Amino acid sequence: MSRSVKLAVIRGDGIGPEVVAEAVKVLDAVVEGSELSIDKTEFSLGAARYLETGDVLTDTDLEAIAAHDAILLGAIGGVPGDPRLRDANIERGLLLKLRFSLDHYVNLRPTKVYPGVPSPLANAGDVDFVVVREGTEGPYVGNGGAIRVGTPAEVANEVSVNTAYGVERVVRHAFEIATQRRNKLTLVHKTNVLTFAGKLWQRIVNEVATEYPQVSVDYLHVDAATIFFVTDPARFDVIVTDNLFGDILTDLAGAISGGIGLAASANINPDGTFPSMFEPVHGSAPDIAGKQIADPTAAILSTALLLDHLGAPELAQRVVAAVDADIAARNGATRSTAQVGDAIAALITAAQ
Amino acid sequence: MSRSVKLAVIRGDGIGPEVVAEAVKVLDAVVEGSELSIDKTEFSLGAARYLETGDVLTDTDLEAIAAHDAILLGAIGGVPGDPRLRDANIERGLLLKLRFSLDHYVNLRPTKVYPGVPSPLANAGDVDFVVVREGTEGPYVGNGGAIRVGTPAEVANEVSVNTAYGVERVVRHAFEIATQRRNKLTLVHKTNVLTFAGKLWQRIVNEVATEYPQVSVDYLHVDAATIFFVTDPARFDVIVTDNLFGDILTDLAGAISGGIGLAASANINPDGTFPSMFEPVHGSAPDIAGKQIADPTAAILSTALLLDHLGAPELAQRVVAAVDADIAARNGATRSTAQVGDAIAALITAAQ
Ligand SMILES: CC(C)[C@H](C(=O)O)[C@@H](O)C(=O)O
Ligand SMILES: CC(C)[C@H](C(=O)O)[C@@H](O)C(=O)O
Repeated sequence: MSRSVKLAVIRGDGIGPEVVAEAVKVLDAVVEGSELSIDKTEFSLGAARYLETGDVLTDTDLEAIAAHDAILLGAIGGVPGDPRLRDANIERGLLLKLRFSLDHYVNLRPTKVYPGVPSPLANAGDVDFVVVREGTEGPYVGNGGAIRVGTPAEVANEVSVNTAYGVERVVRHAFEIATQRRNKLTLVHKTNVLTFAGKLWQRIVNEVATEYPQVSVDYLHVDAATIFFVTDPARFDVIVTDNLFGDILTDLAGAISGGIGLAASANINPDGTFPSMFEPVHGSAPDIAGKQIADPTAAILSTALLLDHLGAPELAQRVVAAVDADIAARNGATRSTAQVGDAIAALITAAQ
Repeated sequence: MSRSVKLAVIRGDGIGPEVVAEAVKVLDAVVEGSELSIDKTEFSLGAARYLETGDVLTDTDLEAIAAHDAILLGAIGGVPGDPRLRDANIERGLLLKLRFSLDHYVNLRPTKVYPGVPSPLANAGDVDFVVVREGTEGPYVGNGGAIRVGTPAEVANEVSVNTAYGVERVVRHAFEIATQRRNKLTLVHKTNVLTFAGKLWQRIVNEVATEYPQVSVDYLHVDAATIFFVTDPARFDVIVTDNLFGDILTDLAGAISGGIGLAASANINPDGTFPSMFEPVHGSAPDIAGKQIADPTAAILSTALLLDHLGAPELAQRVVAAVDADIAARNGATRSTAQVGDAIAALITAAQ
């Protein structure tokens, strides 16, 4: 019995194309001989495409992408300060537009310290947690505005929008994940200052918690959470938090676990109404683009999240095992982006 | 020529009274024999006072405090989850009310790695930076609201308010501080997502920068900044940022520099219209209150910031030198809160 899935591939800018090339290589290796076949369509999107055509993401692009089963994305963003990009916000207009339009309300960001990977922490401990970041609300909604722009009397507001509907669905998902892990859930917010949004998040967590008596629940203010990220990250299992706090915490999580080059993520629409999107947490890093020095591991691990989501956990497991084996053998060796992809693909093929 | 200043002392909750006792001890030791005399008035405020009287901060309290030259504050906040505190937000009603009413628009939070103090980072390097956190705007303004509270249709909004007036005054202050340090200023924001507030902050920094050609300026997204806090904190000199990002970054800064027990802060009204307020960054930590195990160093270092602000830099320097000497001699010894204060006060007296 064979199954074909349609994958939209957005390589994007900077190191995006390089790391996606390796992710695709690994994906091809792991589906080879399996009952899954992947039918890829390339979408040329990002700062480069904008500079060429003036388009960031057209309705036609969006419709075409939405007709796929899933999306693999590299990285988006031009050279910081490029004056030609001043009037385009590629992040809002492309990356966030995809997340919002495709209702990616679960932004899943696992963190793990790999044996042999040096952490900036003296004693990271046995770190293995996942941040469940809300993806469609909060301060990310773009509901801001400004008056008297450019004058000394300017006022610029940003509105964080939080709904019971939006909070409940992501909190529920986080509890489900906790039951598949170590049954611990930490809500991170800033309830003592952002009291309206904070009360809503706290109420929903309390309510949903009654349905999951096996899950132990605690709460941390976001500032205190950053302290524990560096003093005792092993204490965390599942963290559920809003869009902005999740953004901040997952970069920090990537850093303490030995580098943003290992941090994978999934933007999931659990309802299946829209395709989910898989991407490394890192950005386009234009300063090192084209040099074959970017670590493609985060992009490769994102394909494991993709395979899991496509209902092929055994294939996902093979990718993870190959990455684990490759990381264990790294020992500080300097390899090109392609060499890392080759090595992981070879490990997968050898284990088949 | 002698000079007397009126100091309002708010010991507060939890470990607040313990650490303030040591801060006052050190303050008394350092002004002894100097031309400065400090006339202290105690204000019993905090969760304990609220539970007794039902008052958080009355207009009479506020007026009385405002009539002082400066404020020394310990920590505010009851036992988390105390049902009797559910309807009172002591943080908003007291701490933030003081900061906002007294127009503490510069929240100054220096970070330094002391030789001999273990950092959770394997290799912290020569860390010595100061975060200039805006204190009267941003997501802290309390301009949120919610509808259909408690129902599945609830919507809870939080508004971040940013004005050219408010941003410019704190940015200008940060540039001034940079010129007294290593002439480096980093703006931290999230301009790619919070585009309205982000454009305002970036514009003001660009404009003020033209008046400070000797200061080199860069920009980091808040998520990226947390990465550098753990991978290369020595790169920072002065960071200027908004109220919420500053809150998050300074807890992280405290953690990487060897503990929030060393992190001092000043809430400054540079215009001098209102008294400035000096407080440790740490909270009331009710779990360890009354045990004499809290580190009073952050509160003591806050008195150095206070003395600086009162125009007595040589006295401030004596406090800092005594703390430096004490920290260098610590060597992991376990001392009570009072013993740390005694040791630092004795070092000051001996050096006189
Ligand atoms: C590029 C940016 C809009 C994005 C975000 O803030 O979500 C990125 O930082 C991330 O974490 O995926
Ligand atoms: C207690 C709380 C309101 C406060 C803040 O968020 O500013 C604290 O975290 C701080 O950093 O001083």
